Amino acid sequence: MGDFKHLVVAKFKEGVAVEEIVKGMEKLVAEIDTVKSFEWGQDLESQEMLRQGFTHAFLMTFNNQGDFTAFLSHPNHVEFSTTFSAAIEKIVLLDFPAVPVKAPK
Amino acid sequence: MGDFKHLVVAKFKEGVAVEEIVKGMEKLVAEIDTVKSFEWGQDLESQEMLRQGFTHAFLMTFNNQGDFTAFLSHPNHVEFSTTFSAAIEKIVLLDFPAVPVKAPK
Repeated sequence: MGDFKHLVVAKFKEGVAVEEIVKGMEKLVAEIDTVKSFEWGQDLESQEMLRQGFTHAFLMTFNNQGDFTAFLSHPNHVEFSTTFSAAIEKIVLLDFPAVPVKAPK
Repeated sequence: MGDFKHLVVAKFKEGVAVEEIVKGMEKLVAEIDTVKSFEWGQDLESQEMLRQGFTHAFLMTFNNQGDFTAFLSHPNHVEFSTTFSAAIEKIVLLDFPAVPVKAPK
């Protein structure tokens, strides 16, 4: 079985201090043990047309769906979500069991 | 340094055989050595509002940006892109150096 993934693709509002938001997210995942891994990035390569205005991707990995559900209702996550929601212009959010096709050698 | 990631978030056209597209992608990453890892998933959890109609996420990982650039221009990728583009209704594509904040224990 693969892991359970929580993917957030976001465009921030103009003037938002994205570094502060990312710091908040780093603190959040450090505080909550059920977050198995977390990585993020800012788009470098895509043509504007293909990224549709989105600039950042955030990917959290959980051992299973139950851990993800627990994360969603964790008070620290609920609190952070309010801050995050206020900072974004648009968002796409996908939650899925990961199908690992090719694993790192 | 983190890896370089190629993230595709897609909504397929009605009637498209998504399994066939995924098989094609699995074949593609198996053929091209510079793809370090590949995983994908279909959204289970999000509220419709938050997933904006998108249903699938595909995530490829490369050792570095150079490997990713080589992948983009690989003839098999160029060929597959045509098939993929014809199958999707909308797409968001982000390419970024991954910042690993929390690594699996």
